[in-house]
Amino acid sequence: MRVVIAGSGFGGLFAARHLQRLLPRSVPAEITLLNEENFFLFTPMLTEVVSGEVEAQHIVTPIRSFLRDPRLRFHQASVTHVDFENKVVTAICEKAHCLVLEYDYLVLAVGTKTIVPSVPAEEPWLFPLQNLTDAMRLHNQVLDMFEHADMLDRRDVDRRRMLTFVVAGGGFAGVETATAIESIVFGTLLPQYPSIGPGDVRLVLAHGGSRILPELGDELAAYAERLMSDRNIELRLGSSVSLPEEHLARIDDENIPCATVVWTAGARAAELAGELSVPKNSKGRIVVDERGLVQGHDNVFALGDCAAHPDPKGRPYPPTAQIAIRQARAVAGNILASGSRAPLHVFAYEMQGMVVPLGRRSAAAVLKGLRFRGLFAWWLSRSLYILRVPSWSNRIRIVLDWTLDLVFPRPTNRIAIR
Amino acid sequence: MRVVIAGSGFGGLFAARHLQRLLPRSVPAEITLLNEENFFLFTPMLTEVVSGEVEAQHIVTPIRSFLRDPRLRFHQASVTHVDFENKVVTAICEKAHCLVLEYDYLVLAVGTKTIVPSVPAEEPWLFPLQNLTDAMRLHNQVLDMFEHADMLDRRDVDRRRMLTFVVAGGGFAGVETATAIESIVFGTLLPQYPSIGPGDVRLVLAHGGSRILPELGDELAAYAERLMSDRNIELRLGSSVSLPEEHLARIDDENIPCATVVWTAGARAAELAGELSVPKNSKGRIVVDERGLVQGHDNVFALGDCAAHPDPKGRPYPPTAQIAIRQARAVAGNILASGSRAPLHVFAYEMQGMVVPLGRRSAAAVLKGLRFRGLFAWWLSRSLYILRVPSWSNRIRIVLDWTLDLVFPRPTNRIAIR
Repeated sequence: MRVVIAGSGFGGLFAARHLQRLLPRSVPAEITLLNEENFFLFTPMLTEVVSGEVEAQHIVTPIRSFLRDPRLRFHQASVTHVDFENKVVTAICEKAHCLVLEYDYLVLAVGTKTIVPSVPAEEPWLFPLQNLTDAMRLHNQVLDMFEHADMLDRRDVDRRRMLTFVVAGGGFAGVETATAIESIVFGTLLPQYPSIGPGDVRLVLAHGGSRILPELGDELAAYAERLMSDRNIELRLGSSVSLPEEHLARIDDENIPCATVVWTAGARAAELAGELSVPKNSKGRIVVDERGLVQGHDNVFALGDCAAHPDPKGRPYPPTAQIAIRQARAVAGNILASGSRAPLHVFAYEMQGMVVPLGRRSAAAVLKGLRFRGLFAWWLSRSLYILRVPSWSNRIRIVLDWTLDLVFPRPTNRIAIR
Repeated sequence: MRVVIAGSGFGGLFAARHLQRLLPRSVPAEITLLNEENFFLFTPMLTEVVSGEVEAQHIVTPIRSFLRDPRLRFHQASVTHVDFENKVVTAICEKAHCLVLEYDYLVLAVGTKTIVPSVPAEEPWLFPLQNLTDAMRLHNQVLDMFEHADMLDRRDVDRRRMLTFVVAGGGFAGVETATAIESIVFGTLLPQYPSIGPGDVRLVLAHGGSRILPELGDELAAYAERLMSDRNIELRLGSSVSLPEEHLARIDDENIPCATVVWTAGARAAELAGELSVPKNSKGRIVVDERGLVQGHDNVFALGDCAAHPDPKGRPYPPTAQIAIRQARAVAGNILASGSRAPLHVFAYEMQGMVVPLGRRSAAAVLKGLRFRGLFAWWLSRSLYILRVPSWSNRIRIVLDWTLDLVFPRPTNRIAIR
């Protein structure tokens, strides 16, 4: 049995691990995992890299460290083409080596890609926030802006612009990013830059809806809104952001000069999904049936954020790690079932809850129908996260990061590989 | 009193810290520290970043975290010009802002730069090892070579080339680098790449002298040579390396195809030192007198690796952290003395010892005339290093890295900001 898995986020990696576990040792198999990076990224903690709370290295785990079975192989390569008829996947790696892999089963778990508007720019000022590089770049951008602003005169318009940060999108990613920037700016940077006062910094979160965090209930969203307003974050609700010229964000009728815009709105399925000739929904997600099979195929599965998998009411499941992990188990089971010509299982799962960390020891959470907020929700979110981190050495490192963060200022080293 | 300090390695940073400590609060002063990066780099542990033993983030400390005195300022900028006559320093930062600073005293602590030969190259294959970026790039290069070689057929000549690593120079840096590469390759990577065997990897250290480690005694050098030969490192003594074409190292009469050459020989004083019209020795180091004063100036000091400071026998002190730290204290004292028209002190210091970590729980060390090697020297080297790391949070993190390294495989995530 030859299985190719494209992508190794929560969907792809966990599917591979379940296959590894479920396949009896006696069954000859060849499972090939493909991913652009050589590590698994624990995406729920991306914004903690932005805030400097946790180190970049600690939210990633080498994919090869998960491979315990010689039947499972990994290549650092991106899938570029799928020939469904001849069952062949083509992938290229960084050195432009070309891999051609035949498959009996294909699993598409390629995730999403934020669609950022194209902007006039001499230097980067529009930041997506989706992978580790994005998070590290945004962290460095915040540090850079303080460093550069510090050299300018108080009356310089450039200085004000450098210290203005706009976040577009008030979903989980946007709210977490805004509070992450707030926490490093007000908690660590301002005390280290005597020339810059709190009044010099401007932090704006713009959201199209009438309230933020559509994924949570009204009450928790209102709590988060109050908390952000108390914490130096300007909320612009029912607003759209446009970027008419370099270093200028237009929110409603106001022109806001700014050197940093974080774009968290407008995720679509990743490029590859867009290029494949398979049915997709309006957001570019690959349409699959209740068993995870791509429409019109009996050996191609899609799961995780790139897939539109119908829930019992027929609506696609939300693109969250929680769902991807469950789907991965179901798809692994269905591949084995299909291999032994057994009937496939229908996937159904009820979301257990959601947490949104809000920085500085607060969070909002819904868990099994109960709502939590403040310090307890913060503790809860950390506990849930740490349990899901897939390696013990990273769990230990993250707990140490959190502990040191209670005692020492956050590291603000501007590390870059140029 | 206005003091400008160019560079904040061991020399510059410690000079600033001593000034901060020694200057009575009542004395109005303006001490400006300038550095290209916003962090202090603990250079003795650079090769532990190459081997993955310690994380890059843990051997750097934000310079601003050391500034406890409002009279001390920092700018992330590189000095480009000094006008000695008008006592003005010009520096530029990344955004091309120009800083113009007047000084009463100037301290030059700009370090050295490895002079790498110019090579024909489409992609980087010659690696210096001097700053954090270099170390991270080399670490990533080793990971990349394994990743790419894994995709190639056993008989492919490219594969053999990718798995060949040449280190030029058998001083401290060269020996530490070779053993660092050996430890990550044989300790962590080979077990994760079943397709690659120990026989596929070739590691060569070439050194011009008749024995390695000229800084240590014969006995310890012989120990290190034996240890490296036992550990899969080919030693080429009395050899010179040339790089006639891309991916080819020529050692004596042998042409060695290789995708990675680490160049540790040929350090000269940094660019700025070269451009200043001050007396320099044959290695480009700035000639200073016994008090640290640059020849011909009574208000310009130079220290650390960029300075040729005569020891009691008239030979320049070696470029080591140990010496730079002592010189920093002496120069800070002499600036204060000069400010109050007191006589300046002559700097003299006897080296306390030297350690060279050799990977995998062994090291060679000389301490107060005694020689140590093996496990005890390794323990000694770690103890000495950890005491010198200038921040408590990093000390804790490094000890954790070392501890986890005894239990878990090293992290091999290929992290890069592209």
